[in-house]
Amino acid sequence: MPVEKPWASDDNIALFTDLYELTMLQAYWREGMTDEAVFSLFVRRLPETRNFLLACGLADVLAYLDGVRFSDASLRYLAALGGFEAKFLAWLADFRFTGDVWAVPEGTPVFANEPILEIAAPLPEAQLVETFVMNQIHLATVLASKAARVVAAAQGRPVVDFGPRRMHGTDAAIKGARAFHIAGVAATSNVLAGRLLGLPVTGTMAHSYIQAHDDEAQAFRAFAALYPETVLLVDTYDTLAGVDRAIALARELGDGFKIRALRLDSGDLAGLAVETRRRLDSAGLQRVEIFASGGLDENAIAALVAKGAPIDGFGVGTGMGVAEDAPGLDIAYKLCAYAGKGRLKLSHGKPILPGRKQVFRAGTDNGATGDVIARAEENLPGRALLAPVMRKGKTCPGAVPDLPESRARAAREIAALPDAARGLEPAASPYPVAVSPTLAEYRRAVAKSVGG
Amino acid sequence: MPVEKPWASDDNIALFTDLYELTMLQAYWREGMTDEAVFSLFVRRLPETRNFLLACGLADVLAYLDGVRFSDASLRYLAALGGFEAKFLAWLADFRFTGDVWAVPEGTPVFANEPILEIAAPLPEAQLVETFVMNQIHLATVLASKAARVVAAAQGRPVVDFGPRRMHGTDAAIKGARAFHIAGVAATSNVLAGRLLGLPVTGTMAHSYIQAHDDEAQAFRAFAALYPETVLLVDTYDTLAGVDRAIALARELGDGFKIRALRLDSGDLAGLAVETRRRLDSAGLQRVEIFASGGLDENAIAALVAKGAPIDGFGVGTGMGVAEDAPGLDIAYKLCAYAGKGRLKLSHGKPILPGRKQVFRAGTDNGATGDVIARAEENLPGRALLAPVMRKGKTCPGAVPDLPESRARAAREIAALPDAARGLEPAASPYPVAVSPTLAEYRRAVAKSVGG
Repeated sequence: MPVEKPWASDDNIALFTDLYELTMLQAYWREGMTDEAVFSLFVRRLPETRNFLLACGLADVLAYLDGVRFSDASLRYLAALGGFEAKFLAWLADFRFTGDVWAVPEGTPVFANEPILEIAAPLPEAQLVETFVMNQIHLATVLASKAARVVAAAQGRPVVDFGPRRMHGTDAAIKGARAFHIAGVAATSNVLAGRLLGLPVTGTMAHSYIQAHDDEAQAFRAFAALYPETVLLVDTYDTLAGVDRAIALARELGDGFKIRALRLDSGDLAGLAVETRRRLDSAGLQRVEIFASGGLDENAIAALVAKGAPIDGFGVGTGMGVAEDAPGLDIAYKLCAYAGKGRLKLSHGKPILPGRKQVFRAGTDNGATGDVIARAEENLPGRALLAPVMRKGKTCPGAVPDLPESRARAAREIAALPDAARGLEPAASPYPVAVSPTLAEYRRAVAKSVGG
Repeated sequence: MPVEKPWASDDNIALFTDLYELTMLQAYWREGMTDEAVFSLFVRRLPETRNFLLACGLADVLAYLDGVRFSDASLRYLAALGGFEAKFLAWLADFRFTGDVWAVPEGTPVFANEPILEIAAPLPEAQLVETFVMNQIHLATVLASKAARVVAAAQGRPVVDFGPRRMHGTDAAIKGARAFHIAGVAATSNVLAGRLLGLPVTGTMAHSYIQAHDDEAQAFRAFAALYPETVLLVDTYDTLAGVDRAIALARELGDGFKIRALRLDSGDLAGLAVETRRRLDSAGLQRVEIFASGGLDENAIAALVAKGAPIDGFGVGTGMGVAEDAPGLDIAYKLCAYAGKGRLKLSHGKPILPGRKQVFRAGTDNGATGDVIARAEENLPGRALLAPVMRKGKTCPGAVPDLPESRARAAREIAALPDAARGLEPAASPYPVAVSPTLAEYRRAVAKSVGG
């Protein structure tokens, strides 16, 4: 029984939108409202456990904007759904994104209310893309921001992404592996992410391999014969007995023993790591490393590091893979200008800064001292964070640097943040973000014009 | 600049696996370990804020098992990655899933340690599929379980899925819409989920539509002219002024005013709903409903319902879409038999029940009173929850009922749970789940055989 697999693809991605976007599009089309709109994507508030967010996901947004089309099958579905005129569907058949986009580069730390990207395009175009653009930036930013904390906690020890099995679907696992890489994660277990994105992939062995053999020593021997430089998982039955079996294998194989590390996956990881290290060292196996996994997140890793647990690397799954403490951000994509006029809304607790904007980050090469959100045409001290990444629907050269460059940027930009912002604990005083006097005055004027 | 879109597809889904699965597969292949393995998928512990989980995701698992193949491009990638012999890759080219699967039907409430599905297949086949099978059951079960709570809180008022923009990627949004539907959500805003899965789609209007017009009254008038039975969003500038503008439009249009509802999206929803209801009623618009959205989850909805807020339906986004309070489950896929012998591991805090199993749910037609996890061949009082869904790699007829049936099952099975299990608060005493004496004895014997 072949079942159609409900996956997003080039053929159908134009329908990855909320129904109201299409309903509004038809209204804009009928009303002739095709002047330029500016939408701004930003996060209203940071989660309590984030001192900064690491912007990510732009590559997928640009690839989508470059190619979004309504296929015949998608148009037939909309016709069958009802509520759409044939002429409007014919107009949708020719839909292309022809707008401009400005964005902060992937791997840039951002704060509340700072635009991550802004889109200027004919209103229907900028409206339709809302759902996908938000979905992808949200996903990658949630995951990169979490991973940056895990990487910081590991203090230079490699962190490996073990998340695919419990991340939210295939798209999250693939895009997440990329976001983790930009945030400094060393490698992923996700083979498809390796193929599609060129990420380094890695892996050890599972309990099932040990269990399927009649005894643990035999399983170690067989795996080491095939993969001499592998990592042996030692906690299937009794962790320290597993360590002793690995040491026995080293005695058995002599110079042929090239195992890189032992993996601990359960129990008191700190205590087990100390005893494992002691036994390995006593056996002359100082070069064999200890790798830990099992329910880890930045707090667990920080605690292990603080205790001085002799652990050389960490495999991190669910906690990072679903960003367990902050899986959702208060992200918004809001109209801030239309037909040359600044726009905002006055809804309780949901402010908008009108018009196109820029963010200036002040500070020396060694450190960022604060940001100012300004009108796009202002020229203030500090680095301008938003740059053009798409012009008239075409991605600008260099808009999406290769992954090593984005990863290096993230490392550099995070290092430049004040200590408190880089720490795992909520910063006593948040990183300073101001609104420029010119933008504040413009906001007041626009608010007045809509009755605020 | 066309950028390859990193999406899962039929062509590449075989690589949606952890690297160690392939490493182990090559070892099994080399060692001739192709006897039948049984793997069991279950959740070790329920999150504190879940009294039950709603099993979901089987349809996608069966579709995958039915069709999983290594494409030439995938095999070329593995060859380039290194570490795999050409003969092993040739063997992978012929890889098919030929095993048997038993599962609880989608929409069945399950508890800690109860198998959601069990796979019996040659060891390499059952091993390779671990990552995808876990990923999809985890995703759908996380989201269905959350949605069941939101639906329960709404006490019969329709709940609409507004999640796509903040769910974790496209796959989560599509599969999530299906899981929400099974859990009782009335409709989704996700058009692609509508196309791919035949789900009911719905939507209202966004703030941007109001903002793009020079005044709110004009925006209401234009939208109502095109969509007479739509829902008007009234909180863009001042909620009660928006309500008054909708009432003014009703006076203006007379019998032509067919607006179904007003939507409140910010502020004190309970207070605003009361005043909105009062103004609508005073204007003779008793039939116009009130729809609420904005940061809602089951607790917020329960509070609104408890206050008697006159709200007729709820749009729920992020809280449900990322299952904010419990985005990850402690789900496991564990080897429990190989080559006719029960298998387990003794890792601290991570128990396994060996061998193929069955779950018997005792109780009358009106209520479930407790479950017993037993060996597969036992015949105990109560309904057996696991049924064959795939035989020799072919999906069994009826294994995946149509969506209305799964949705009806979920409603019926949840209704049959004890009150405490159905409640939003953590149950004072958890739903009773026992291990049968026969299974317990078998577990002791297997543990002894591996040194436990």
